[in-house]
Amino acid sequence: MNQQSIAQSLFSVTVASRQYDPAIEHKINQKTKPLGALGQLESLALQIARVQYSRESEWINAQPDRTESTVTESKAATCSPLYINKPTMLVFAADHGIAAHGVSIAPSEVTTQMVHNFIHGGAAINVFCRQVGFALEVIDCGILQPLASDCGVVNQRLGAGTQAMHLQPAMSLAQVRQGFEFAKHLVKRHVDNGCSMIALGEMGIGNTSAAAAVMAAVLNLDVELCVGRGTGIDDATLNKKVTLINQAIDLHRNELTSIESILAHLGGFEIVQMTGAILAAAEQKILVVIDGFIATAAALVALKLAPQSNDYLVFAHQSHEQGHQLMLQTLQATPLLSLGLRLGEGTGAALALPLIQGAVNFYNQMASFDDAGVNNVV
Amino acid sequence: MNQQSIAQSLFSVTVASRQYDPAIEHKINQKTKPLGALGQLESLALQIARVQYSRESEWINAQPDRTESTVTESKAATCSPLYINKPTMLVFAADHGIAAHGVSIAPSEVTTQMVHNFIHGGAAINVFCRQVGFALEVIDCGILQPLASDCGVVNQRLGAGTQAMHLQPAMSLAQVRQGFEFAKHLVKRHVDNGCSMIALGEMGIGNTSAAAAVMAAVLNLDVELCVGRGTGIDDATLNKKVTLINQAIDLHRNELTSIESILAHLGGFEIVQMTGAILAAAEQKILVVIDGFIATAAALVALKLAPQSNDYLVFAHQSHEQGHQLMLQTLQATPLLSLGLRLGEGTGAALALPLIQGAVNFYNQMASFDDAGVNNVV
Repeated sequence: MNQQSIAQSLFSVTVASRQYDPAIEHKINQKTKPLGALGQLESLALQIARVQYSRESEWINAQPDRTESTVTESKAATCSPLYINKPTMLVFAADHGIAAHGVSIAPSEVTTQMVHNFIHGGAAINVFCRQVGFALEVIDCGILQPLASDCGVVNQRLGAGTQAMHLQPAMSLAQVRQGFEFAKHLVKRHVDNGCSMIALGEMGIGNTSAAAAVMAAVLNLDVELCVGRGTGIDDATLNKKVTLINQAIDLHRNELTSIESILAHLGGFEIVQMTGAILAAAEQKILVVIDGFIATAAALVALKLAPQSNDYLVFAHQSHEQGHQLMLQTLQATPLLSLGLRLGEGTGAALALPLIQGAVNFYNQMASFDDAGVNNVV
Repeated sequence: MNQQSIAQSLFSVTVASRQYDPAIEHKINQKTKPLGALGQLESLALQIARVQYSRESEWINAQPDRTESTVTESKAATCSPLYINKPTMLVFAADHGIAAHGVSIAPSEVTTQMVHNFIHGGAAINVFCRQVGFALEVIDCGILQPLASDCGVVNQRLGAGTQAMHLQPAMSLAQVRQGFEFAKHLVKRHVDNGCSMIALGEMGIGNTSAAAAVMAAVLNLDVELCVGRGTGIDDATLNKKVTLINQAIDLHRNELTSIESILAHLGGFEIVQMTGAILAAAEQKILVVIDGFIATAAALVALKLAPQSNDYLVFAHQSHEQGHQLMLQTLQATPLLSLGLRLGEGTGAALALPLIQGAVNFYNQMASFDDAGVNNVV
């Protein structure tokens, strides 16, 4: 079996078209502001327009009764308004076998406690989603104990936590495939329901260890460069974390021959499903907002599996974790925020939504030089 | 006349009390998140709480019938919810004599054109204020031609543009005083109306020259370090800008003996009124959000006049202008955003409001470890 084939067999990802870039850029440059003066919001508006016009063009081209005039009058050709419909924050929760071996300040039971906190609306991600208008959906990808079926959490369990990766593979390739399939259906359900943007958050004690291990293996870097203090561990715990991750990589070295095999041996159930959600969003040509260290590790994996996915990614937050900065540099990503958050849950992505909305709004609403009778001095 | 005395005679600024800091920090640290994991939002929540509880304590202490129990049950003592009431963006517009001498890509008439764009709702600042919930008020501090009295712009004109500072003083000390008085009344009107936070934006072709000149004189720095490309000038215009500002500083060197004299000789009508607005907000103990280069120059001046003002300042955006970065370093300020904006108008401050709201909301709404039944592992 070709281990790369899981993603290829499940997801058909193509780049966003650059066909309308000149028209989009012209529209942006005619707004009543100096050229480029809205900085990152301008490149973001270009990206959003490119994605949404590509999606629409693809839809038009798929119609059997399309005509030349359908194409000429399309939203893309007329640079019609951008939109953020039903933005949805997907928080993927899972437990990690390695967490029982002293790599975190918190025991695994905190994962479940925090999921209950999400259910009751008391966590940071609840507060920020309510504020900015994200619908919030929590997905149990495999926390230690199953939840009651009526608790409002989506059941996409791949197991009762991964295996401790320094002792055996975290999961099987069959679980990776199942995780990708879960994510694909999850994203499709939201898109079919009118959602035009998802964001990815996570909860899982021990998941910075899994993310760091995946990062080190995928980028072939020293583990020390990929590991941070997570929720705030001390030197001894940090050393333990490095030791166990090195042990895991050494143990599985001969099996780390493909990206998906790395994911299986070193990853986590939420990292697998976040990777799948990114590939699914890219396949559906909708934006996917990437939060912190864990989500960025999933993005790294998704981009290795399908580099075309990059057109659909918006990076929300640059944390102080050295591993995160290194991954973002590797991905040439410039996140919208850098607030020193190290909480996960999707909090950085939630806080970035008003900026994404700002990009959409200036594109849609600002007057042009002609509209406003302002000298275009540029 | 002691030239420092204008601000001292008009504004009584005191620091925010640190009395409730331990209670505020305890409340923040009991939220269901790792210690410090909300980064800059935590220090911002502390600042907002400190300001609002100080304001309330001052009010209680001023009551003739206050009792011990009034004080004990005060909002401050019980760490009651924070709030952002009627957030108001004040955009100060003015023209600059130096603009006629080739320091900008745009002629002075663009100031008036953009004010009309503000009136009609088509500028970036209109879009962002509508999005985030800022009320927007535009103040004519002295653009070239007066506007119709019914156009919705507040008339606080100090003249028909400043004088060209490289040829004569930009304005008189009497105009500085008048500008401070205007700003004091403006801010008081909003506070009396229930506003708990103002933000400062500006519009004025040539105002980066005035701000750079003020910065160079106040900090005694080489003009080259303070000057940037503003809206996007070329090398020749940049050289011209440096030359004229140096000429202005040389011409007035013997008069630049106080902060207010620097403001009079090198400043702008909007910079004076923004300085006054900062001092007024600090006097009223409300937050004032500082946008880009021009607003930061006003903050620099205000902090020289009343260092206690610092407790009330929230810095919104770090631009790429070298002078702006240098001022922020000098002020030890860490802005919330760094999006490469170079538009002014208050756009950075508007885009920062959701983050400020986020700090208020997590403080008010997040569950504590006890509330949520989550292990406090910190």
